[in-house]
Amino acid sequence: MSQERYLIQGDFISTPTPQEVAIHENAYMSVEGGMIQSIDKKKPDIGSDVQLIDHGGQLVIPGFSDIHLHAPQYVTRGLGYDKELLPWLNDYTFPEESRFKDHAYTDLVFNDVVEDLWAAGTLHSVIFSSLHTDASITLMEKYAKAGLSAYVGKVNMDRNSVEELSETTEASMRETERFLEAAKDYADRDVLPILTPRFSPSCTNELMRWLGDKVLELDLPIQSHVNENLGEVAWVKELFPESKHYLATYDDYDLLPQSRAIMAHSIHNTASEMEMFKDKDVLIAHCPDSNSNLASGIMPAGEMLDKGIRVGLGSDIGGGNRLFIGYAIESAMKASRLLWALSEHEHRVITFAEAFHMATAGGGSFFGKTGLFMPGYFFDALVIDDRRFTKYRPLSVFERLQKFVFCGDDRNIVTRYRKGQVLPKPEWN
Amino acid sequence: MSQERYLIQGDFISTPTPQEVAIHENAYMSVEGGMIQSIDKKKPDIGSDVQLIDHGGQLVIPGFSDIHLHAPQYVTRGLGYDKELLPWLNDYTFPEESRFKDHAYTDLVFNDVVEDLWAAGTLHSVIFSSLHTDASITLMEKYAKAGLSAYVGKVNMDRNSVEELSETTEASMRETERFLEAAKDYADRDVLPILTPRFSPSCTNELMRWLGDKVLELDLPIQSHVNENLGEVAWVKELFPESKHYLATYDDYDLLPQSRAIMAHSIHNTASEMEMFKDKDVLIAHCPDSNSNLASGIMPAGEMLDKGIRVGLGSDIGGGNRLFIGYAIESAMKASRLLWALSEHEHRVITFAEAFHMATAGGGSFFGKTGLFMPGYFFDALVIDDRRFTKYRPLSVFERLQKFVFCGDDRNIVTRYRKGQVLPKPEWN
Repeated sequence: MSQERYLIQGDFISTPTPQEVAIHENAYMSVEGGMIQSIDKKKPDIGSDVQLIDHGGQLVIPGFSDIHLHAPQYVTRGLGYDKELLPWLNDYTFPEESRFKDHAYTDLVFNDVVEDLWAAGTLHSVIFSSLHTDASITLMEKYAKAGLSAYVGKVNMDRNSVEELSETTEASMRETERFLEAAKDYADRDVLPILTPRFSPSCTNELMRWLGDKVLELDLPIQSHVNENLGEVAWVKELFPESKHYLATYDDYDLLPQSRAIMAHSIHNTASEMEMFKDKDVLIAHCPDSNSNLASGIMPAGEMLDKGIRVGLGSDIGGGNRLFIGYAIESAMKASRLLWALSEHEHRVITFAEAFHMATAGGGSFFGKTGLFMPGYFFDALVIDDRRFTKYRPLSVFERLQKFVFCGDDRNIVTRYRKGQVLPKPEWN
Repeated sequence: MSQERYLIQGDFISTPTPQEVAIHENAYMSVEGGMIQSIDKKKPDIGSDVQLIDHGGQLVIPGFSDIHLHAPQYVTRGLGYDKELLPWLNDYTFPEESRFKDHAYTDLVFNDVVEDLWAAGTLHSVIFSSLHTDASITLMEKYAKAGLSAYVGKVNMDRNSVEELSETTEASMRETERFLEAAKDYADRDVLPILTPRFSPSCTNELMRWLGDKVLELDLPIQSHVNENLGEVAWVKELFPESKHYLATYDDYDLLPQSRAIMAHSIHNTASEMEMFKDKDVLIAHCPDSNSNLASGIMPAGEMLDKGIRVGLGSDIGGGNRLFIGYAIESAMKASRLLWALSEHEHRVITFAEAFHMATAGGGSFFGKTGLFMPGYFFDALVIDDRRFTKYRPLSVFERLQKFVFCGDDRNIVTRYRKGQVLPKPEWN
């Protein structure tokens, strides 16, 4: 079907910019080769050979992008939220991740991760695997089978971990090469590798330099963490006395390629780091659930948007507990409103449209032409059956979107399209 | 069945106090007349006529209590969270509530409210209806049919509302009498009336005095709101210059009957109000979702528990957006950790056990012997099928409870018991 032309009828809503809501109620979208050609109020005059797909009365929204999560923390998400970041990593996360040297365990967990992402309508992910190359390749394979697009990272970490989860500098380099080689098999299905120094404290300067050289040599994107927790920030200062701040520990090693770096959390930023986000066009992965669960703080999302910094949302499984990106939208709104209240209005609140934009066009910007409905964009979409919410009395399309996000969940998603094709539930065998 | 004796096998967990977690793994609970007789590690020597109900391998937890929500805001929950309390009330809530003079609309919405409470495992509610007496009686009828226990309040509000939602002082009194009379029909099914001055700004001094006299005359419980929003607190100060603080506006009219008053929100409290909560043994309805959505702030839950103040949880539909009390537990934890982080550790965090206690034994304390598993308490319980979370590797019972709350939802609840009897899904006809 993907090369064919067809028409879709429905109530379309997307956010071309953080401030702009585009609504096409009871409209007709023309799709060809998986790409949106036009959106019309009146049914275009089409030949009898062009199929009309009737989603009339249903809400059609862009597919979600989750730009920060850890696949091997799926089993432990929800556990240990009585702790802060560093003890939580040592007590829960690192021991769990060490299990992913076991292929059977990896297979069992990653089937569910990818199937549950499909269920949650997350059509695009930027995801950490563990340091295990085989597990990371398995994860790519699952994404490719499911038809979901992803950037997958084999984690690099050659210091400051626990005994059962560490690699030598040399092994980290060698295994990264092996991962990049194996990853070539999935590129045609939009499953791509991303360099993944866990965070500065996990990588020696030698490894950081080597990764930076890979970025320069192969034009690779990178993902990592920055400014999540005050203890972590202080620790990085000790470990990298020569860098002017935490974010610079990446830039100093060429690990902030222009428009190709994702930095998760970004809560406790200096003014100079805010400038660097903007200059390097870093995509920020805002992870409000995780930041609450681990008592890290609240990212000043409003200020970032006002500076023109790109922001997307991350479930941050397992610091975050729920996959459905609707929750991340909800939590981003809640966190922003608490920051406003608790800072005596020093920080501005974000709007619902801004939070929804982060979850779709914002995160989607890392993947190219996706995340909003406009000619020239891929038709990557979720069809929402929201009769549950509209049965009492009519609601506007914008109100219906709020109801789905704040009161609905994956149960309301009835069809998923990627590049114009319906994605069936993944089958593993 | 309720008078019979039977045995239940399962993994039982409850919190007798905010600090105490009682776990009986693979244990046998003996229930007679709907009441817990014993919980034993070894199967008691019972006669062959005593039924054994096998929930082996399943988690059995106390039923949830939602001690603050507004039934007529079910349709608008999730909408308008770009506003603060007072404009939100005027723009969304009051116009919506005025629809409940229409019986067909009331019937349609309240069927779903009660059915969804059943689905969410909320066996006990303390709930606001609207000011409409007939709608309030309809709500009691729905609860009684469903076998759920509740305190239902016909709202009193004789000033400061919108035109389509107001009553004269005299009508408010007369309709309250009519409501109390009609309510007698439901008392044998644990559906009881509660006096419900909406909040001080909504009631004239004359009405407050009359309601206080009813409390004294009939020994009735009351529910209301206090200290939710700073604008509201300032407004109350203007309206009641003679009262020493917001909470005193209730006490001055005998509206804080000992151990029989619920006050929702309680965020911006003076030291003197904290003392009054304790002295009057007020039950606090902590509503973290609503308090975030409406940018009200974060209730200092840790300090309240440390003072020995009773705390339960409220979904506060529609300031809150989700019925499942697991979300309220999750949000209470998150809010507490953000308060700790943003107050530079001036406020302490609450533990998972404390938040779970609020949702069960804390809120349950308003209903008598419910909310925990101990001989002499009613067997009010939810059976949780959590194989979805334990399929990868074994988890402790306490970890399983965390997984259910942080990663599960109503889909995991497979059976609901109230006073020892299985509650089937409500059927309306």
